[in-house]
Amino acid sequence: MGDPAGIGGELTLRAWQAWRGGDGCFVALDDPDRLRELARCMGLHVPVVAIAAIDTAPAVFPGALPVLPIALVVPARPGQPEAKNAAAVVASIERATELAARGLAGAVVTNPINKAALYEAGFAYPGHTEFLAALTGATGRQIMMLASPALRVVPVTVHASLRQSIEMITTARIVAATRTTELALRREFGIARPRLAIAGLNPHAGEQGALGDEETSIIGPAIDELRRDGLDVSGPWPPDTMFTEAARARYDVAICMYHDQALIPLKTLDMTHGVNVTLGLPIVRTSPDHGTAYDIAGKGIADPSSLIAALVLAGELAARRVAALGG
Amino acid sequence: MGDPAGIGGELTLRAWQAWRGGDGCFVALDDPDRLRELARCMGLHVPVVAIAAIDTAPAVFPGALPVLPIALVVPARPGQPEAKNAAAVVASIERATELAARGLAGAVVTNPINKAALYEAGFAYPGHTEFLAALTGATGRQIMMLASPALRVVPVTVHASLRQSIEMITTARIVAATRTTELALRREFGIARPRLAIAGLNPHAGEQGALGDEETSIIGPAIDELRRDGLDVSGPWPPDTMFTEAARARYDVAICMYHDQALIPLKTLDMTHGVNVTLGLPIVRTSPDHGTAYDIAGKGIADPSSLIAALVLAGELAARRVAALGG
Repeated sequence: MGDPAGIGGELTLRAWQAWRGGDGCFVALDDPDRLRELARCMGLHVPVVAIAAIDTAPAVFPGALPVLPIALVVPARPGQPEAKNAAAVVASIERATELAARGLAGAVVTNPINKAALYEAGFAYPGHTEFLAALTGATGRQIMMLASPALRVVPVTVHASLRQSIEMITTARIVAATRTTELALRREFGIARPRLAIAGLNPHAGEQGALGDEETSIIGPAIDELRRDGLDVSGPWPPDTMFTEAARARYDVAICMYHDQALIPLKTLDMTHGVNVTLGLPIVRTSPDHGTAYDIAGKGIADPSSLIAALVLAGELAARRVAALGG
Repeated sequence: MGDPAGIGGELTLRAWQAWRGGDGCFVALDDPDRLRELARCMGLHVPVVAIAAIDTAPAVFPGALPVLPIALVVPARPGQPEAKNAAAVVASIERATELAARGLAGAVVTNPINKAALYEAGFAYPGHTEFLAALTGATGRQIMMLASPALRVVPVTVHASLRQSIEMITTARIVAATRTTELALRREFGIARPRLAIAGLNPHAGEQGALGDEETSIIGPAIDELRRDGLDVSGPWPPDTMFTEAARARYDVAICMYHDQALIPLKTLDMTHGVNVTLGLPIVRTSPDHGTAYDIAGKGIADPSSLIAALVLAGELAARRVAALGG
């Protein structure tokens, strides 16, 4: 569901229109009445069918959007978050996660939430990812990969200031993020021997220490350790030249030192098809690479490309995971 | 000339081949014998004609590369820098600058130098730009703009570690760099009212202080001051979304807080046509956006696109400057 005041609902309706003829299916965990009303207001021909159990979804999907009902307390109004609906938003995440954890769904795709509205209602997790980790009893650290057709990136540090991010970069953190990424690329992305390119932190990757020493003191030792494990790692690469077309052809993922080092090239190359993949969870989870977008919610102009890409990628990752388990 | 052991010579020969049919002309300040030998070795049909004065260059250019002779002390060998030739490299820069300062040349385009080789020979400047500033008696601070067909960027801080760059960002530095940029865009790039987009430093431009406060304490005040001067500035923009195609359509230049924030999007979008423009000099000066590339020097595989783009842009900037002076 995501935040019912955001663009999640309309994107879900459009994603069904885009996907109904394809392989596989998805089910919405949402309020059927609010989705019907949304489709009506936006003039979208999307029949909405409430189902009682997920196993009927494949039969329903070609003709209608199947919805496992989660009732809102008050009607959703685009752009106007409502703390009274927070429990329904949380229930949607819980139920989706349970379905995936039990193997009844292949993956969870989360529409954007408004954390502030959830906090007000007592939600005690920093975000989706931490909540999913708790629900699934995940051990270790989850990391975020952003994937588009042109590039995959994993930022080693994320939601911190640039100054704090530099402080947070350690050899152990780089090693852990790279190992988690390598495992996911093998098991879920179907890459037999992933090539991992590790970015430098400083201009020209420090220019032999003239422009910073993190490459020699922190990043280099991480690369050495990963190579001793037999991983195909390269770097530290000068950040400004590692995202050109020729450079991207030489690796499967770029391990980046900070948020914008990863996100600037990803979004510059492709703003609309980026997908957020959480690595290190026992379930497959993807999400579109945008927020609730209250400013355009309900106007019918939100672009469903990222949600569609998130659904497609979730399906691919789930299929490989099932295949790997012999299922 | 640039470093005669680097790729500058072969790029100059190829640039002449690419440009000989077009408008305007350029003259090399180089050793005619070494250019002839280079053309022969590489199988390039580029006649080289030594000229005694620059005013004969336009007549020579359609049929041969005109060269104002600067003799090397020892023969240049690709990939092997030679301190004995440093004086010739320096003389080439001096003479080119003098020609531009006297109005006999429209602009100076510098091929890459090897600073280490020049330092050995007693060169006392950090690089080209500082030397040109001293030669022309420039006042104020010079700044670097990188321009490609897709994007123009000005990094407010450059050759420092990322950590140091953050320390170097001040309101005064942002204001000075933006003013210099605005003036150059008006006078030399022919943009009547330049739109200047100022980047944030932190992820999501600090997210109202949650991810860093430089946007409110340093960058915001710079924007306020520039607006009071009547400049068309916007920002601070979230760095990861300001380089998409839609975002780039809304500004003429991005003022960036650090080297890679500027260079990652520029090189990711276009690795081969980036040109370095020095703003804040009394002469027009551009250079290709690459180094001496010793590893491929003399092999005939170096791409002349950036040098050609630097020559073309230098010609355009010089023409506008002449027009603005009523010349």
